[in-house]
Formats: sequence, C-alpha cells, structure tokens
Amino acid sequence: MPETAQDDPLRSALFTDLYELAMAQAYEVEGMEDQAAFELFFREMPAKRNYFIAAGLDDVLTYLEGLHFTDDDLIYLRGQGQFSSAFLARLKNLRFTGDVYAVPEGTAVFANEPLVQVVAPMLEAQLIETLVLNQVHFQTVAASKAARVVAAASGRTVVDFGSRRAHGTDAALKVARTSYLAGAAGTSLVLAGKRYGIPVFGTMAHSYIQAHEDEAEAFAAFTRLFPNTTVLVDTYDTLAGVRKVIELSRRLGEHFRVSAVRLDSGDISTLAGQTRRLLDSAGLGHVHIFVSTEMDEYRIAELRASGAPIDGFGVGTRMAVSDDVPHIDMAYKLVEYAGRPRIKLSPNKVTYPGRKQIFRMIEGGWMARDLIGRHSEVLPGEPVLRLVMSAGKRLPVGHADLNAARLRASNEQDRLPNALRGLDPSERPYPVEVSDGLRRDLEDLKRQVMQQR
Amino acid sequence: MPETAQDDPLRSALFTDLYELAMAQAYEVEGMEDQAAFELFFREMPAKRNYFIAAGLDDVLTYLEGLHFTDDDLIYLRGQGQFSSAFLARLKNLRFTGDVYAVPEGTAVFANEPLVQVVAPMLEAQLIETLVLNQVHFQTVAASKAARVVAAASGRTVVDFGSRRAHGTDAALKVARTSYLAGAAGTSLVLAGKRYGIPVFGTMAHSYIQAHEDEAEAFAAFTRLFPNTTVLVDTYDTLAGVRKVIELSRRLGEHFRVSAVRLDSGDISTLAGQTRRLLDSAGLGHVHIFVSTEMDEYRIAELRASGAPIDGFGVGTRMAVSDDVPHIDMAYKLVEYAGRPRIKLSPNKVTYPGRKQIFRMIEGGWMARDLIGRHSEVLPGEPVLRLVMSAGKRLPVGHADLNAARLRASNEQDRLPNALRGLDPSERPYPVEVSDGLRRDLEDLKRQVMQQR
Repeated sequence: MPETAQDDPLRSALFTDLYELAMAQAYEVEGMEDQAAFELFFREMPAKRNYFIAAGLDDVLTYLEGLHFTDDDLIYLRGQGQFSSAFLARLKNLRFTGDVYAVPEGTAVFANEPLVQVVAPMLEAQLIETLVLNQVHFQTVAASKAARVVAAASGRTVVDFGSRRAHGTDAALKVARTSYLAGAAGTSLVLAGKRYGIPVFGTMAHSYIQAHEDEAEAFAAFTRLFPNTTVLVDTYDTLAGVRKVIELSRRLGEHFRVSAVRLDSGDISTLAGQTRRLLDSAGLGHVHIFVSTEMDEYRIAELRASGAPIDGFGVGTRMAVSDDVPHIDMAYKLVEYAGRPRIKLSPNKVTYPGRKQIFRMIEGGWMARDLIGRHSEVLPGEPVLRLVMSAGKRLPVGHADLNAARLRASNEQDRLPNALRGLDPSERPYPVEVSDGLRRDLEDLKRQVMQQR
Repeated sequence: MPETAQDDPLRSALFTDLYELAMAQAYEVEGMEDQAAFELFFREMPAKRNYFIAAGLDDVLTYLEGLHFTDDDLIYLRGQGQFSSAFLARLKNLRFTGDVYAVPEGTAVFANEPLVQVVAPMLEAQLIETLVLNQVHFQTVAASKAARVVAAASGRTVVDFGSRRAHGTDAALKVARTSYLAGAAGTSLVLAGKRYGIPVFGTMAHSYIQAHEDEAEAFAAFTRLFPNTTVLVDTYDTLAGVRKVIELSRRLGEHFRVSAVRLDSGDISTLAGQTRRLLDSAGLGHVHIFVSTEMDEYRIAELRASGAPIDGFGVGTRMAVSDDVPHIDMAYKLVEYAGRPRIKLSPNKVTYPGRKQIFRMIEGGWMARDLIGRHSEVLPGEPVLRLVMSAGKRLPVGHADLNAARLRASNEQDRLPNALRGLDPSERPYPVEVSDGLRRDLEDLKRQVMQQR
C-alpha cells in the first residue's frame, strides 16, 4: 500500500487538486511568473442564513508558512509521468512568498465579500487553492451554524458534542474550534481541548449505566469518584432515573454533590419540566438540567419558547455537519494578473475584476451597510480586510488568538441589525453594495472581452 | 498556544470524548474489568436511501493497532485535574487487546445491522467509541452517496472533485477513497492518489484561461504541454470556446490531441448537445464531453434522461458532503458485559441485547432478505460479520485492499433487488428480520429491568 501514515494533510503540499499542479507547470513553461491576485468569497447568501462568521484563517496561514514539497511528494509526482524534471526541481525549492489580506476570524461576512485575498507569484497563488478553500469554507460554515445555536440558547450553556458524527477527524476538531469561537462553552473532544486550549466536558454514557447491574448503584459509584458531575438519567426511564438521584441525595445528605442531570431521549420539554419539579420538591433546586438529543438552533428555540427549565445543551450531529446548510458556493477566483484585472463571464458565475476592499459602515453602533470597492479606493467606512501575511511571513495581526476571535464574533453579532440575528430568513438582507469604480471596471472589462471574441 | 502540529488525530488516543475517559477511570476504580461487547449500527434507513455501503473499517483497524497515549497526552490529561495517577499510569501502558468482527468494506448494509462488533476489556472497548463512530459513520455515508452517483452515471466516468468543499482535510481524503470504493474512476485530490494508490485527474481551471490575454492562446499553450488533455471551454462563452478548440484542431491537424472539453456552467444539457454537434461536424467525434457543475445523482439522472451526449462527470460538493443525507443515526452501543446481555430502553432508542450475527439469504443470485440473530445461532444464509482483528492483531482478512472493497461494492449492488437500486425511495424496503431467539432475549431482559425498578 502506498499509504504513509506520516502525511498530515494540513501540512502536505499534495493536499491540492491535480489541475493546480498541471497549471503550475504550464505557467512555468510559458514563463507566466507575474504576480497574481486571487480572492476567496461566496456568491450567494443561502436562504437559511442571514450572515456568516469568517473562520479558518489560522490554519491557512500555518499551512502557507510551512508549504513545501517533500522528497516523497516529488517521487510520487514523478511517477505520475506528466511533470518535467525542471518543474519538479522548481517544486523542490518552492515556498510561499506572497502577501495575504483577510478578514479576521470571527468577523461577520456576506455574499461577494472577499474573505481572503492572496497576492503572490502566479504559481504559488494557484497551488494553494484547494487547501485555502477546504479550510475556510468548512470552518466558516461551521462557525456560522454554531453562532445560530449559541444565539438560540441565549445565555444558556452550549457544548459541542459532535465529534462522532462530524465528517472525519479534521472536521471534528474544527467543529470544536469554531463552536468555541462562536460562543460555545467548550467541547466533548479531548484532542480539541489539548490542541486549542478550550474547555472539555463529559461525564458518562448509557453504556456505563448498562454495565452496572443496577442504575442507582452506577449513580452512587460515579458520583463518589467525580463530585459535581452530571448524571445521565434516561437509560431505562427518565423520571425513575431522576428519583434515583433524589434517593442518592437523601442517602448522602451534605455529601451529595451532583451538579446536573442529563436527559437524552423522549419528550424533552415535558420531561425537563417534570424533572425540575421532582428535583425542586426534593430540595435540589441547585441541580441543573442538561439536555442533549437531536439539538440544533431550531429545537433549542422551541424548547426555550416552551419555557422548559433547561440550563444547558449538548449539541451534536446537526451542528457538526451544519445539516441545513452543509456547504456554500465559496470560490477562489483570479481577479488580477500581471497588474491587469481579470474576470470570468460564465453564466451566473460572473466575478468582479481586480483586488477589492470591504468598507463597513457603522451607524450608532450598528452595522449599517458594506461597500465593496477597489482595494485602492478610499471610501467611507471601516476597511475590513487586513494584511495578515507579508512575503510569506505571518504578521502579528495574523497570529491566531482563538479567544480574541471569540470576542470578535460576539461583538460582531451584537452590532448586527436585529432583523439579521433571528433564526428566520430576514426580509431585509444586510445591504452590500458595489462601488461605482468597481462597477465601471467590470463593464470596461466585459466590453474588452466581448470585442476580443 | 497548546497546539502540537504533530498530532495526527487518526493516531491520537485523545481523539475521544471526555466521558469515555471519565467512565474508563470509573471502571478502573470499580474493578469493572470484564469483557464487554459493543456494536456499531444505525437505527433507521433515511427516506432518501435504499441501502448503505459499509466503509471506514481500515482506518478503525489501523487506529486500534497503534492505540497508545503519548507522554504529552498524559501530561495534558493530568492537567485536567480529574484523573488519578494510578489511572494515568494505567493509560500509559494501555493497548487495544480485543477482537473485532465487522462487515467487510463495500458490503451493502441496512438499519439495525451491526457493522462493527468490538469484544474487548470494558475500558478499551469504551475508549475507542468516538473514533470508531467518526470514521465508520462518515465513510459509510460518503461511500453510499457515491454509489448512487456512480449508479446514476450508468457506466459513464465519475471523478471526485469535492476536496475543496468536503468538511476538512480528512473528509476530502475519505471522500476520494470512498468514491473510488463505490466505483468512481478516481479523484482530483493528489494526496488521496498518493495515499490510496488511486487515479488522479485534472487539467485546468478558469484562472488559467483568465491569466492569458487570449483564450485560444491558452488552449494552444496548454495542449502543447499536455497532449490528450481536457480543455475547459466556458470561461467567457461555452460555444465560442468550443469553436476555438475546433480552430486549434484545424491549425494543428494530426498533431491535435485534445481528448475532451469540459463544460462547467450554464444549461449543461443544451450546451452538451450543441457542443457535440459542433465537434462532430468538425470531424472531432472522438473528443469527449466532460461536465462538472453542481452534479449529483439526481442531476446526472436528469442529464442522462435528457439524452445529453455526456461522457463523464466531475462530481464535487454535493457528493463530498452527502448533502441530502449528511448524517445517519449511527450509534456504538454496549450489548454485553461480563457475559450478560445488556439493553437500553430510552424511548425510540431501544437496542437488542447480546452479540449478533447477520445472516444474508441469497436466492437465485439476488439478495432476498437478512436475518439478525444471536452471534451463536446457526441460521440459514451467509454470515456477514467476520472476525477481522484478534487480540489486537489484524487478521489477513482485515487487511485493507481498496480494490477488493471496490469489487465487493460493485458485486453487492449487482445482487441488490432492482427496486432498491434506483434513486427513488423503494416502496419495498429490503427485508431485515430479527431471529426469534434475539426477540426472546429482548423480552426477557426488558422484564428483568422492569422488575428491578
């Protein structure tokens, strides 16, 4: 088998589509070595989202800093038969030497706004497309889903429980990271806790209860070992489980330290109410109720609206795969080469030419509208894209601070127009306009291309 | 930052939910060191699937073979404050020593059938839950989506183009792997080609055309460098692009070697027809038409039904995220501990007790029905679960051979009842029955649990 367990895909120059390498060789042969600018953006806001929260930049910059082909990579490529020795020698010494402009992680973003802008020699800028898209697309989709879940929980604790059904190991880590970025309290995934320094949560599964001959015995043993734990009560019958917790509290008196019960099945709203009443009438008003089955922002909003006395939500699958919007039409497009703006005119896929900047107008503390202009234009509003990497070196502003991104995501949502903050599609989408300059550039270029044909 | 770039999540014992470790410590303290059996299965066939193709076992077995905690892992866990020194010392020496039974990759599977059965000391069997689910869930979902796409293409080439919008790097690799397993010709992702030894495809993107001053010049330059290539014709106007390919063929005569044109936007069905006519009337009947925008099994079926002369499909996002069924309710449940069967009675989540076997009845070369029985029962039909790992060592039958799995997937689909092979929900779901023995076991155990309460 050609498998090499050592390849970390996030560190591998071969995490790229073959056409990137084919084009790179063509650029080499044709001497097309000028500077190119590519922009990453999505074309349309899906009906089920009012905004996105940008994420994934940190992994992109780490990848760019370390980009290189190993000998092993080059041997593999040589075996493909389509790459010349000269080109492979070129790859051997290739490093990323370009500049990167980007919106900081945690920023609210909208359709057609560049999230990442890469300015680099053509060959380098082209080769990195696959990884840049792979990371920014998914992390942005995941952070944005999590932001909705956190908003629906309105102050109640949200914990990511999605690692088992996220799409592979990288997705599980990124869901943990982006949920935290979007305001979740933490994750169940231990490796994410280690890697990102975020809180990890978890106590027991049904298997623990099942493995004991008796549920009450399981509760007693576990709480003896872990004070202030959460007890899972629904393995056989939720309310019977709650009563066993209450019996335990009577038996242990002041030594009883259970901090919460978890409900994971059945009619959660009704069961939470009944559980609350049982606990309260047993003097256990301080024991919280945590729920965790088939949660997402819609379900949480429903439960909150029902008045169910729930203190926290374990949110798994639906958040982890962003099941209502598992993908957006994000693309990485050439906008400038050799100092000249470039466009594409494929039906429904027209792109504005040239490097851009986003200008964000704030009015009375609220986001009022964005204007996408030429990068060189001076327009009203805060410029959102920042230089985060220069000549292949990450700048201080490009260094990941997950907590700073988390704070930014929270502040951004606080200044979003109210209509956009709900779960339902807003009737008044956030206004994103295109500057007159940029509009003229598109028309001019369109005319030129048409004339050529 | 606590990030350590070296952690390969597929090789890390910390790719686990915190509760697995909490329970493991409790099992240790309570001396619950008996053998446990866990089974991985999904509860319900989603409306949009008639069958699933099992995948992900190879990664699970590789993980189990290498399972260990590094010193770094243990330092991190110690810092969490809830694990005893004795338990951490135990983890330091922990290896997976259990047996694994599984359905081979590429096998057709249905609701409630165990895909993987782990028989191991409780602590080991519990700890591995998160990774086993993470890999088998996603790879099975992805292989099954790809199988539908391949079926819809009915003999036309399918290539995985999904790496940029798959959920992270691991998902991109696994989509490439499982698409190939399900019958795709290969992938665009180079690292997947290297890692799995599968064919890689790709020629040019729009950026290559855009970077040239003139489209025809771009075609000429690229085809000079790469004979027998595929030319992307829709950057500005599809049919004008096709005409430029035809001009090139006239200019080059016998040196013209373009093997295909690719259409990536617009009304594909109409454009494919027009392109075919243009090519044919220029004597280029041998130049194939490859299409690649927003493809999935439904779209491909539509295009095939329209009679559009398409020779191959590049299938990206929708297959890569399995957008119509991005998750299934797959679980890993304790079914036996210390020689006694175990159940769970949570509403809608009842599990049958004890270790099981799947018996598959074949009639006249067709799959007729499955019977899920006790593992020890002798029932009619082929037993589907096989021992693939014994005492922590992979058996020869457990060694991955992706090509063998691919052949199996193809054979399995060939013997599926016709009603299940279409894209629409079958009115006659595949019959999966439960043996009388197993049914009795559930009733007996339910009665016992009820009496205890």
